[in-house]
Amino acid sequence: MSMHSGRERLVVIGGDAAGMSAASQARRLRGPDELEIVAFERGHFTSYSACGIPYWVGGDVDERDQLVARSPEEHRARAIDLRMRTEVTEIDVAGKRVRARDVDSGAESWTPYDRLVIGTGARPVRPDMPGADAPGVHGVQTLDDGQALLDTLARTGGRRAVVVGAGYIGVEMAEALINRGYQVTVVNRGSEPMSTLDPDMGRLVHEAMEGLGITMVNDTEVTKVLTGQDGRVRAVATEAAEYPADVVILGIGVRPETGLARAAGLPVGRHGGLLTDLAMRVRGHVDIWAGGDCVEVLNLVSGQEQYIPLGTHANKHGQVIGTNVGGGYATFPGVVGTAVSKVCDLEIARTGLREKDALRVGLQFETVTIESTSRAGYYPGANPMTVKMLAERRTGRLLGVQIVGREGAGKRVDIAAVALTANMTVEQMTALDLGYAPPFSPVWDPVLVAARKAATKVRDAR
Amino acid sequence: MSMHSGRERLVVIGGDAAGMSAASQARRLRGPDELEIVAFERGHFTSYSACGIPYWVGGDVDERDQLVARSPEEHRARAIDLRMRTEVTEIDVAGKRVRARDVDSGAESWTPYDRLVIGTGARPVRPDMPGADAPGVHGVQTLDDGQALLDTLARTGGRRAVVVGAGYIGVEMAEALINRGYQVTVVNRGSEPMSTLDPDMGRLVHEAMEGLGITMVNDTEVTKVLTGQDGRVRAVATEAAEYPADVVILGIGVRPETGLARAAGLPVGRHGGLLTDLAMRVRGHVDIWAGGDCVEVLNLVSGQEQYIPLGTHANKHGQVIGTNVGGGYATFPGVVGTAVSKVCDLEIARTGLREKDALRVGLQFETVTIESTSRAGYYPGANPMTVKMLAERRTGRLLGVQIVGREGAGKRVDIAAVALTANMTVEQMTALDLGYAPPFSPVWDPVLVAARKAATKVRDAR
Repeated sequence: MSMHSGRERLVVIGGDAAGMSAASQARRLRGPDELEIVAFERGHFTSYSACGIPYWVGGDVDERDQLVARSPEEHRARAIDLRMRTEVTEIDVAGKRVRARDVDSGAESWTPYDRLVIGTGARPVRPDMPGADAPGVHGVQTLDDGQALLDTLARTGGRRAVVVGAGYIGVEMAEALINRGYQVTVVNRGSEPMSTLDPDMGRLVHEAMEGLGITMVNDTEVTKVLTGQDGRVRAVATEAAEYPADVVILGIGVRPETGLARAAGLPVGRHGGLLTDLAMRVRGHVDIWAGGDCVEVLNLVSGQEQYIPLGTHANKHGQVIGTNVGGGYATFPGVVGTAVSKVCDLEIARTGLREKDALRVGLQFETVTIESTSRAGYYPGANPMTVKMLAERRTGRLLGVQIVGREGAGKRVDIAAVALTANMTVEQMTALDLGYAPPFSPVWDPVLVAARKAATKVRDAR
Repeated sequence: MSMHSGRERLVVIGGDAAGMSAASQARRLRGPDELEIVAFERGHFTSYSACGIPYWVGGDVDERDQLVARSPEEHRARAIDLRMRTEVTEIDVAGKRVRARDVDSGAESWTPYDRLVIGTGARPVRPDMPGADAPGVHGVQTLDDGQALLDTLARTGGRRAVVVGAGYIGVEMAEALINRGYQVTVVNRGSEPMSTLDPDMGRLVHEAMEGLGITMVNDTEVTKVLTGQDGRVRAVATEAAEYPADVVILGIGVRPETGLARAAGLPVGRHGGLLTDLAMRVRGHVDIWAGGDCVEVLNLVSGQEQYIPLGTHANKHGQVIGTNVGGGYATFPGVVGTAVSKVCDLEIARTGLREKDALRVGLQFETVTIESTSRAGYYPGANPMTVKMLAERRTGRLLGVQIVGREGAGKRVDIAAVALTANMTVEQMTALDLGYAPPFSPVWDPVLVAARKAATKVRDAR
């Protein structure tokens, strides 16, 4: 360790986006003679895109390995001592060491660290109900999960799929299974799919999904998974009904994987994620950093911590951590809550606060909802889109935007994401100089149409 | 007039985007009993999309009337006294009146005003060379121009077109004529097409246009248009060569149409456009407003006035003017120089300053150019794109972005347009919370990849 070798040792727990981005960036800044890097990963893969799994299952992506951004060998070639199938079982904060277990042999040993990065990610919520572990019931959190699901789909007769949950994973998996020719039923606890949207916008997603032939069952809790004589899943049961299923996908979200960190006494927030400072250091611990799906992030609009597991944040966290660990300086100031998704050709995007988020943090607001098109109305392929905008009462500050539409709708949310980051008012937004030409936008971009209407409403209500 | 009737009279010169938006917005705020509105238009059409003409000529838009957002009858139905084919020939500022002439009868009369809006637009640059007025040589500024060109295309045998100029109009017309099956040659005075980009990015457009089968002739001035025995165009001549042509399109830009305003002593800037204040009032004239293609606009990045004729600005100007004329309050703070265009499936976008713009106003900067893709690399339809970014030396403030790529490239410029408006640094941009999902973006959006690289370069050079 450092005392003896004259160089420091960085230990990384978790070999996916946050951990390995941190390791790679630290390596860029400091060579192996200055910094030893040891990384532990309990699974079979490193640096992969979990967000890509639905598209692999749906057949848009051919090969599992296309989802792997960097293999263990590639990491090792950059002088990162990556130990696969090795699970860290304890962090000894006082002793600055971690205990790791070889998953296959069971052998355990301690590894001292000078600096520690925690990137343990998330674990899927598994409902505590009878049959949840039956063959044919699948999560889609890891590449291993995806492979298991594909094996089931290849092996199993029948064409009926039930997706439990109607968030991002749920709707993306509904698309994947539609693309594979399944009859898809989505059972959703909420009143509308995509609870990251306000219900009035979720309603548009609901209607579009039904238009795609997906059966939506809202306001409904799954109570058990029913199995056949072969022990395999045969249906999903709710209080009121049974939905036959040859395969069941659990897409009911994830929680931060922080058991290890909690046991070590590290601080977690009310959503169960590790709490860090702006440099992504675990609060109160100068030598420990954390990032990715195991941490909470500051929402710059609400001013409160939030849990948003998302690959793009994990990569940014890793970049910031690696820069700081490597002797540079970087911060992660927070998020505005941007997300984009699609179900077949329906694009769904949101940023900032929903109505209930704003109310929860004491903000009063006006809302507007407008219809416009992705291109000039006369240009071929002009698709309708709906934009909802929230603006703070009196100040007119932008609080949030939700967009549902077809091609060209989703990424328009970036306009609002930047405006939120810059604390713009909707009045200021009306003057934004956005790209205009008939194939790209109406002469007033749909986001500006919403901003104009919101500015008028704020003014009239003041 | 106002003294007698107890109501004010607004006179509008020019019936297109700026003028009629102003009239419509003023009417929304003040009824006919408070405000009389008289508008003069010398042509046959009102409120049409000149930007749409190339797509009408190319066949993407079927009917001329699809380009008309609001017809004279629709304006009149909103109590706007619209006088078509009536040209204003003089503004008497001291006497607060305008003289107008009926284009067909030649009859002239004076109309007094309380408030005046000037929306006289632009006129195309017509090169002063032999043959420029020959049959078969066409501009594409107005709907009348577009109709005349379509008539020529329908009537004329031959399949060879020469486009003079390689700016927005030039490249869009090249696409239009390719779509109609013409062999297209573009003759361009500059070293690369799209001089609104730096030459290194223009080079990418050049290569893509050649890939589309368009013959590009750069660094070349057209010296004359050659005609046949029938008096019609037969070729375009340069110093070095002749290019046979059955039809010639002049796309060499426009200038502000300000003859009337100059004659009245109103202030024009160094680009020939009217100068206004932030409320779009003509400087020094409390009762006169101007907007659209006849004014100069403040570039918020350079701090200097610029001439950018663009429908989206004209509409915003009209909205601001109409609000102020109608007794409300609105301003047009300026532009950042955003523009987007396409040639077939090549998308071209820019915002902020080019290298030469930055140098001209005394800014020192770093530049980076990166390659990335529109979607996650493994997702079908991930298209390559090139992003160039300029950041100010020392401060790292974003100065400009240029993007050339395929589907999904162009509108990404809006991210930079908002960041420019908010005076963000490239370091701040690296933390932007942009929409991410594999069908929409790589985990680092291409604009963020450029921002990261630019931030590093600024830091290293400091």
